[in-house]
Amino acid sequence: MKIHNFSSGPSILPPEVLQKASEAVLNFSNSGLSLIEISHRDASFVEIMNSARNLALELLNLQDKGYSALLLQGGASLEFVRVANNLMKVDGKAGYINTGNWANNAKNEAAYFGEVIEVASSKDKNYSYIPKNIVVPNDLDYLHITSNNTIYGTQFKDFPENNVPLVCDMSSDIFSRNLDFSKFDLIYACAQKNVGTSGVNLIVVKDELLDKTNRSIPNIMNYKKHIERESMYNTPSVFSVYVSYLTMKWLKDLGGIAAAERRNLAKANLMYSEIDRNSLFYGTAAVEDRSVMNATFFLKDESLTMAFDELCSSEGIYGVKGHRTAGGYRASMYSALPMTSVQKLVEVMQYFETKVI
Amino acid sequence: MKIHNFSSGPSILPPEVLQKASEAVLNFSNSGLSLIEISHRDASFVEIMNSARNLALELLNLQDKGYSALLLQGGASLEFVRVANNLMKVDGKAGYINTGNWANNAKNEAAYFGEVIEVASSKDKNYSYIPKNIVVPNDLDYLHITSNNTIYGTQFKDFPENNVPLVCDMSSDIFSRNLDFSKFDLIYACAQKNVGTSGVNLIVVKDELLDKTNRSIPNIMNYKKHIERESMYNTPSVFSVYVSYLTMKWLKDLGGIAAAERRNLAKANLMYSEIDRNSLFYGTAAVEDRSVMNATFFLKDESLTMAFDELCSSEGIYGVKGHRTAGGYRASMYSALPMTSVQKLVEVMQYFETKVI
Repeated sequence: MKIHNFSSGPSILPPEVLQKASEAVLNFSNSGLSLIEISHRDASFVEIMNSARNLALELLNLQDKGYSALLLQGGASLEFVRVANNLMKVDGKAGYINTGNWANNAKNEAAYFGEVIEVASSKDKNYSYIPKNIVVPNDLDYLHITSNNTIYGTQFKDFPENNVPLVCDMSSDIFSRNLDFSKFDLIYACAQKNVGTSGVNLIVVKDELLDKTNRSIPNIMNYKKHIERESMYNTPSVFSVYVSYLTMKWLKDLGGIAAAERRNLAKANLMYSEIDRNSLFYGTAAVEDRSVMNATFFLKDESLTMAFDELCSSEGIYGVKGHRTAGGYRASMYSALPMTSVQKLVEVMQYFETKVI
Repeated sequence: MKIHNFSSGPSILPPEVLQKASEAVLNFSNSGLSLIEISHRDASFVEIMNSARNLALELLNLQDKGYSALLLQGGASLEFVRVANNLMKVDGKAGYINTGNWANNAKNEAAYFGEVIEVASSKDKNYSYIPKNIVVPNDLDYLHITSNNTIYGTQFKDFPENNVPLVCDMSSDIFSRNLDFSKFDLIYACAQKNVGTSGVNLIVVKDELLDKTNRSIPNIMNYKKHIERESMYNTPSVFSVYVSYLTMKWLKDLGGIAAAERRNLAKANLMYSEIDRNSLFYGTAAVEDRSVMNATFFLKDESLTMAFDELCSSEGIYGVKGHRTAGGYRASMYSALPMTSVQKLVEVMQYFETKVI
């Protein structure tokens, strides 16, 4: 049975990426050795790392604009700390917009290193919307935004005007839509949604932003050190870097972010149309803030949960349960998800409606 | 041509591990989905994570002895920071034994968090030996030792008497020899030598050691938090965890550490016998401190370098160049390396001798 993978991350990857990654585990580049047992200093892997870093800048249209790209271990949760370490001055102050669990975690981890203020929040309505008309103080070391809130299905469509360095956690929507990425000073993303699989983070940072705080930080936390060492300060997560390289290359061959955005909008439009049409379901995110990546929805009658879960399972729909803190359902529609999977889920929701009513 | 993989890490893995890992990238456990695109909260992966953590304790004979095992991202270089964060009291003091680059890096990273003293060092002779008769002060928050020095080919055979918590970076010799592991309070290792492939670290820590410092540390740096969340505080490096699980299971089926030790000693004996016998080569590590994992050696006549490199290459010998800071040659003989590969390298060295002389 064909499985339709709506997992929120780790999440669906293009079949050709999985095929090449699987082959490389047995025999990388006709070397007679596995990708995962060669030295990371081997010329063949150094080329992968460099190509991956360049591809990231190319896809974001940030080549030759004073940015560097890194692929580091640790998960986005480690970048919460690295960002504060690298950008928050001693006795400085950072601003965070609290639009969900991850945004809140980022803020809390930064608070270990200095003053952190909540510039805006949507916690009052269980993170179901994106705050508007945000006034950003001018005395911040940086402003931190989580562009897409995976758990709650909300997404920034416009970013607040500001005169401070702008840091964005794009873990769940990087490479999915066109933005003027040069408006951001630092972008980071865990790989396991739109970049590749878990085990590596992409960081894209404006070089001139770094080394300005006088804060004394360990080398492993220091973006400048990682840039000097071309993302090889310590042994990288070789397999995860390779999967990111393959996925970014797939995206480039597809037509880059512009092509991904068209596909993603079409999928999201179909999905939200059905959530709004179907008499059994309702969405919770404010309509104007709905995420193109993660559509969250609930059954009006919760007693139907088991029946709908069983139907999904029997029809090959995987990973639509909502986050354990949010409940309900969530269809994650990252760039690698084909339109046919959304069509299938919509058909299943329609069939369920005819069966129940 | 059969390739003999002497890489220092990422390094050789058992063929059956590579086969299973490659298959899982296409279809994990007959799910119709790839291992690297399912949720890390999927029951099938949770079972892998739990099994891997249990296997680590079982192999070290530390089950039911108050230890916990974690598999976290970041590389050993991140554990340098985590160890200091979790164990060094505010205004406390830690002791480090400086037996090589990595030991020195561990010390330098810890120095960002408090006073660090060098309890002993072998830097005076380019790290070619292990310091003896070490006197460990009683007022340390912990003593840090690097059990095997990959770059220089030295290894602690006995560990110094001490009355403080003992922390050991076993990145390059964990699971390779029998020790009384209960003498250690915290053991950590990057996976890419004897545990699996890069992208994950194994940490084994005595529970009672934690949460004693009053130091305020971010969640992502907090071992206690990771233990509470069963090594799933944030998304793990799924593929690397799976490869570690497969490799530890392979080791258990082989007969555990005792069996690995027998194999490893036999390989090292053959290798060092040839280094000592062959008139073209010499070893640099003090004989009594020679590493069973990494044999370092040099050509007496450096003008023969290109010829020997070409011979190795043409005979399928991969990864024997020494670390870029040390030069010469290094044969890494981790547990997955078969005896036949050492025999091949020895034959090549013998043939080279007959050709030159």
